Amino acid sequence: MNYSIIRRTTGLVLKFEAVFLLLPAVTGFLYRERAGLIYLALAAAYFVIGYLINLKGDTGTEFYSKEGFVSVALVWIVISICGALPFVLCGDIPSYSDALFETISGFTTTGSSILADVEALSHASLFWRSFTHWVGGMGVIVFVLAIMPMRRRRMGSQMHMMRAESPGPVVGKLVPKIRDTAMILYKIYFGMTVVEIVLLLLAGMPLFDTLCLSFGTAGTGGFGVLGDSIASYPLLQQGIITVFMILFGVNFNAYFFLFMGKDKKEAFRLTEVRWYLGIIAFCILTITINIRGMFDNIFLAFHHAAFQVGSVITTTGYATADFDLWPQYSRCLLVMIMFIGACAGSTGGGIKVSRIVILVKAGLQEIHHYVHPRSVTTVRMDNKPVERETVRAVIMYVGIYIVIFCASVLAVTLFDGGESLETVFTAVAATFNNIGPGLSAVGPTANFGHLSLPSKYVLMFDMLAGRLELYPMLVLLYPVISGRRR
Amino acid sequence: MNYSIIRRTTGLVLKFEAVFLLLPAVTGFLYRERAGLIYLALAAAYFVIGYLINLKGDTGTEFYSKEGFVSVALVWIVISICGALPFVLCGDIPSYSDALFETISGFTTTGSSILADVEALSHASLFWRSFTHWVGGMGVIVFVLAIMPMRRRRMGSQMHMMRAESPGPVVGKLVPKIRDTAMILYKIYFGMTVVEIVLLLLAGMPLFDTLCLSFGTAGTGGFGVLGDSIASYPLLQQGIITVFMILFGVNFNAYFFLFMGKDKKEAFRLTEVRWYLGIIAFCILTITINIRGMFDNIFLAFHHAAFQVGSVITTTGYATADFDLWPQYSRCLLVMIMFIGACAGSTGGGIKVSRIVILVKAGLQEIHHYVHPRSVTTVRMDNKPVERETVRAVIMYVGIYIVIFCASVLAVTLFDGGESLETVFTAVAATFNNIGPGLSAVGPTANFGHLSLPSKYVLMFDMLAGRLELYPMLVLLYPVISGRRR
Repeated sequence: MNYSIIRRTTGLVLKFEAVFLLLPAVTGFLYRERAGLIYLALAAAYFVIGYLINLKGDTGTEFYSKEGFVSVALVWIVISICGALPFVLCGDIPSYSDALFETISGFTTTGSSILADVEALSHASLFWRSFTHWVGGMGVIVFVLAIMPMRRRRMGSQMHMMRAESPGPVVGKLVPKIRDTAMILYKIYFGMTVVEIVLLLLAGMPLFDTLCLSFGTAGTGGFGVLGDSIASYPLLQQGIITVFMILFGVNFNAYFFLFMGKDKKEAFRLTEVRWYLGIIAFCILTITINIRGMFDNIFLAFHHAAFQVGSVITTTGYATADFDLWPQYSRCLLVMIMFIGACAGSTGGGIKVSRIVILVKAGLQEIHHYVHPRSVTTVRMDNKPVERETVRAVIMYVGIYIVIFCASVLAVTLFDGGESLETVFTAVAATFNNIGPGLSAVGPTANFGHLSLPSKYVLMFDMLAGRLELYPMLVLLYPVISGRRR
Repeated sequence: MNYSIIRRTTGLVLKFEAVFLLLPAVTGFLYRERAGLIYLALAAAYFVIGYLINLKGDTGTEFYSKEGFVSVALVWIVISICGALPFVLCGDIPSYSDALFETISGFTTTGSSILADVEALSHASLFWRSFTHWVGGMGVIVFVLAIMPMRRRRMGSQMHMMRAESPGPVVGKLVPKIRDTAMILYKIYFGMTVVEIVLLLLAGMPLFDTLCLSFGTAGTGGFGVLGDSIASYPLLQQGIITVFMILFGVNFNAYFFLFMGKDKKEAFRLTEVRWYLGIIAFCILTITINIRGMFDNIFLAFHHAAFQVGSVITTTGYATADFDLWPQYSRCLLVMIMFIGACAGSTGGGIKVSRIVILVKAGLQEIHHYVHPRSVTTVRMDNKPVERETVRAVIMYVGIYIVIFCASVLAVTLFDGGESLETVFTAVAATFNNIGPGLSAVGPTANFGHLSLPSKYVLMFDMLAGRLELYPMLVLLYPVISGRRR
């Protein structure tokens, strides 16, 4: 293990975090809050520490896939450990563990909160909380679209472009190319956020709320600024958020084609995007029918169904209605699309639509083979055949996903024996898939604060593992899993 | 599609069922019940019909894997449709759909019941109900160990012995060999049942109960003859049942080695059997600790933990205690081992331990590869490498399993909106994995009678699909799934 990587990563993260902290500091000053000073002081401290750590030059060692995974895991862990401090120092979240939960929930764009009363927070902390979503979302886009495809495949040493696992724009092997792609993606991400902010302002939302909610939408996070999430905003503003949640759950590949591609129609031909929109349409339709009796008219039922489906499948986690009170079919369907999640190459979490597509197509083929044993078919996506190795890796991913999910549920039942199975099941589902709220005691009107400390740490692990596509956290824990030294 | 196969299978099944029905007929006569006459009349009728159907000689067409799957599915469907009739005619279960549910539950060795009061049944029907378990278990052993490995593999036309999916004794390619193997397996199955009957008689259980409960144990079914399942029998008798449930969940391969093999130690070296016993030991230990406060002493806690773990992991479904009232950790662990199930090549259901072993080993390897990208390793079972194709098929199986599970849960929430998610989730888990009771409103002291008719048919499908390792039912439904004619 190359330990200089830990030093280098930590230093770099601290310097970035220092810059990010300036924004809540400014917010604090504008609202004349003492918190502003604390954010500023921490920003300065982190910058100095980061600078000192990075003083000792780069040792220039090679960067293998193992180191890549470890450093990605470290980025999220270090930024969260340091990012939690201001909440404690401001007195907004007295317990450090709770603050860490909230910060990991922020940077992993989960949106699960331990806060019973969000509105009691200082504006600086509210802003920081939502801003972590935006930073996390930005980090994920580059990580998934630019770094993940670089990992060495078992079949050889060449850089393997694994379209299924990260079907982003085809990223070249060279670092300058990655940097170019990342810049284009950042521009798209930034531009879409700005458009949402402008539209929400035009719809009459206050600036502070506009910024926080747009950050939460862009990162598919879900932290709001009011106690009832999005429920008390006018319908038009809710509608705008619905559309942008769904847009941020689309594979950024589609936007790449749309804005940069020669054939703009290609964006609409992407298999994953079609399935994603198809699943959303199916869920909105059936849930609207299922809940129509609970609302004054069918339009309102449609409005809330669309908002909730968009919020859950993109793993944002905003709520306009207490869907915990909806009929079982709707509740159950919402829990299931928690696992499906958004498109790969978006800021959303979950298993990802592309993996589900491959799983379903491979499954249908398996059945087909039992009926026609001599036929030869391959799984196709975007009109190209998917390599068998990719199909295998995708199914394996889902297998590991289930094992971690079950282990987490079991651990939480052990630490929180008093909670119902529905609470425990959806608490893990909501954090592992980076959604936010679950059902029952962790439903949209409740929070995660009442869980025991060990359960909270299990869920923090789940948020990180879910966000980083499992392997970075597993590689980090490999010595523990395998019982061997790295 | 070769339709003569449907005729031939139906005729054969009817003749067999006629012979089976003689036993409850005799029981009815011994207890001087009118039901005995009904069973006898039906036996005669089925034999005549079966004989007439089979009069038209065999057309001698080739028997492809598709036809094999379809006929296996038909065997279970036809035997259940006909087997349900006596319950209705005796007046024991007035609704035919309920009787069909009970009979499918019997032949698939599930043990889920729609009866609120078991003890109100005639002795003939009670006997028939338990006997269906024994017949079903016998059918499964031969189907899984002798017929399944014959299916043509996609890689070529040779008969492929897929050890992982059916790690029974290595069955030869020729029909006479299969018949030999089947006979040996029947003898082991029959012998073990007799030993259990003798031991239970020696322990002082009445003959009628002994027969019914032994049939239920051997088939890992779970129908009892008393309202509280096994709770009111003495501890010694419960203990004997515990041991035999666990024994019938062992891969029959082990008994084959033990009784027929040259190296008897080989039985104890089987990877699947070791994992199976390891999982059981882990579950009994942790559940004993978890529930110790609920019982007078630690021995009683251990006794009930052992019984329940044995009952659930082997998918039998007997109960000595209302485990629905146990702490969440125990309830949750029991639900999880519902999915693991017993060993492949036993009468138990579930995903099967061997598949779990392959899944876990392949998952650990995947993580290993991210840490050491250049290493080459293979999944090993019984000290032999498992083919990549087998690993792929196993993971695919689990994937399809999950899809069917989710679709069933969703369907039941739609038809039974009033039931809790826990009820719906465990109702599907208990039927799909062929266990019997679930939790909450379908827990060990409750029954499935209150569910709606469409839900019952969904669960009937799940019982059949789970029992027949998915593919026979999926091949049967293939025209529906693919939207094409077969």
